[in-house]
Amino acid sequence: MNAYLDNSATTAPCKEAIAAVNDAVTSHWGNPSSLHRVGIMAEDILEKARKQVADKMFCKPEEVFFTSGGTESNNLALFGAANAMRHRGRRIVSSSVEHSSIEEALTQLEKQGFEVVRLPVDNYGRVSEKDIAAAVNGETILVSLMAVNNEVGTLQPVGSIKRIVTANRSPALIHCDAVQAFGKMNLKPATSGFDLMTVSAHKIHGIKGAGALYVRRGVKLTPVLYGGSQEGKVRPGTQAVPAIAAFGAAAEALPGCERSNERVKSLRDYFVYALSEIEGIDINSPSDALPYLVNISVMGINSEPMLNYLSNMGVYVSSGSACSKGKKSRVLKAMGLDDRHISSALRISFSRFTTMDEVDLLLEGIKGIKKTIRPNRK
Amino acid sequence: MNAYLDNSATTAPCKEAIAAVNDAVTSHWGNPSSLHRVGIMAEDILEKARKQVADKMFCKPEEVFFTSGGTESNNLALFGAANAMRHRGRRIVSSSVEHSSIEEALTQLEKQGFEVVRLPVDNYGRVSEKDIAAAVNGETILVSLMAVNNEVGTLQPVGSIKRIVTANRSPALIHCDAVQAFGKMNLKPATSGFDLMTVSAHKIHGIKGAGALYVRRGVKLTPVLYGGSQEGKVRPGTQAVPAIAAFGAAAEALPGCERSNERVKSLRDYFVYALSEIEGIDINSPSDALPYLVNISVMGINSEPMLNYLSNMGVYVSSGSACSKGKKSRVLKAMGLDDRHISSALRISFSRFTTMDEVDLLLEGIKGIKKTIRPNRK
Repeated sequence: MNAYLDNSATTAPCKEAIAAVNDAVTSHWGNPSSLHRVGIMAEDILEKARKQVADKMFCKPEEVFFTSGGTESNNLALFGAANAMRHRGRRIVSSSVEHSSIEEALTQLEKQGFEVVRLPVDNYGRVSEKDIAAAVNGETILVSLMAVNNEVGTLQPVGSIKRIVTANRSPALIHCDAVQAFGKMNLKPATSGFDLMTVSAHKIHGIKGAGALYVRRGVKLTPVLYGGSQEGKVRPGTQAVPAIAAFGAAAEALPGCERSNERVKSLRDYFVYALSEIEGIDINSPSDALPYLVNISVMGINSEPMLNYLSNMGVYVSSGSACSKGKKSRVLKAMGLDDRHISSALRISFSRFTTMDEVDLLLEGIKGIKKTIRPNRK
Repeated sequence: MNAYLDNSATTAPCKEAIAAVNDAVTSHWGNPSSLHRVGIMAEDILEKARKQVADKMFCKPEEVFFTSGGTESNNLALFGAANAMRHRGRRIVSSSVEHSSIEEALTQLEKQGFEVVRLPVDNYGRVSEKDIAAAVNGETILVSLMAVNNEVGTLQPVGSIKRIVTANRSPALIHCDAVQAFGKMNLKPATSGFDLMTVSAHKIHGIKGAGALYVRRGVKLTPVLYGGSQEGKVRPGTQAVPAIAAFGAAAEALPGCERSNERVKSLRDYFVYALSEIEGIDINSPSDALPYLVNISVMGINSEPMLNYLSNMGVYVSSGSACSKGKKSRVLKAMGLDDRHISSALRISFSRFTTMDEVDLLLEGIKGIKKTIRPNRK
């Protein structure tokens, strides 16, 4: 038996996604921009997927722009908004715990002359509304904040940004990186006041190679890529129909958040309770985090040998974001954790398909680690 | 029976590509950046595909950078090279018949202060070496030319660029858009002196959602997207493993160019000979074009009703690039064709799987068009 508990890195494609890919590559492989029947059939698949994704994003199909994934959507949101709004001001407000595709894009925007404010976070990785309000001024053209942190599961006060932006008379567009939240929280961009929202297919049991950016009707973005007229020229290039079809099918297959979250929360609570009976384990995630993510530190033992030990017994977790591939966590550091906690961190991430048996296998693994791996000497 | 003869727009996935996608979405769906076994298995698939693609690109695997497709590769090549080289000069030399993902990126670079020279073409869409030599100077930082035109099949003198750049003491990087040539010509970037070369999966019977950019070892590009450390930071974001695996399989399945080209050439010659017996048809492609592409004008009849007529009988061709979705051809205009030729153009594009029966069905369709569709009054 194996336990795949790294669902924040990627998820196993669901059967609906697999069926959609198969159909797209065997029966609907036309170019959706072609004017003949083979093309139109592919376009139908594309537009069906756009509707399926829009339904779960609580927006209109024409507000969904397909990209290659979360990184491209985040880059398009940041560069696209900053360049479109540069005549209105130069300040961009974000946080110190964003995904690398936001953090690195922000660094690039700084080099281009934008002033980037990275808000600090508390010990649980949370940005305060007070800090957002203090940072957003009349020169602020963009506020970008993730809904759920990808390493610790902390929820950010994304629903308050619009109120602050309005109160502070800022022209800022609001972008929410909802990659970890999509399908797990009912984030409604219109109600939440978002102008832009990023989602990714392979985090919701779709396949790698598709993502989307919600662009509120009326919001103009400067494109990052130039070419044909696909996706309203916001994102040219022949669409990745197979991955997009799988995205649509995976979105449609998402159950209501409430039901799956309740199940996952009971797994999480069981896991955390069991951990409390093992000595020397600190929980880095707050108790009100999204239950799909638990970040822990197994004090005195380095992450890497733990990952290897667990991998060898068929238990798959990570030490942080897959995109930072083993580097020390910037997020845990921003939370004020000391090196001992950071170097011994494990990120466990569940999905709606995770079973109690998988959690038990992980617990067995953690007990094995404590018995087997020699503590470091810090 | 149907005849899909729009292979320059996209191709049907080959059985090897379909098998590779299925394997990737069912058995190798991990995140290739994850450090555990599930991730490593996906990374193995990714690196296998990189080797398969590199073999057919005549380069080293570490010179292959996966992207979402041809449009992104072309944009990365142009913006990446121009930004990395901007301290050396401002001139970019290209042609007036490039794909929209080059043409539109060039327009954007002009807005950013680069001087773009779009070389004219002759009646067959060919750029002359003399014109390249006259345009490339010491201030020229990039020469970008397609190997094969996507509307008429004309071959460009891409093999002569390096010699000209060297003779003119230019620091220019050389980019070749080889989307239509890949797998059909033995373009060897090292031998040809290319620094950058674009290829796309879905034009060689792979699936949509993957492409690659060859970047010669030692060449530094400024990225277009920012994020994780995937693809050596030249192209961050979780790789589209299923589409990339299919790309690798499709590349490996490519037969030697010589053999399939000979078959396609005999189909093309048969087709053109049969056309010569139908009155009022002009061939816009040169006789030495890549045999996979034939552009014709059915004088006096507009493209759109012809496409519909043919589509209704199961024959699928186009009036030009799928990416320009029915707009009047910029390429044919640059070739000096008059409006009568441009408005009555059909692009027929073969693949190595095209049969004589399909060509016969198209010929039947063209004869039907001549009998059925009322000529325009130009």
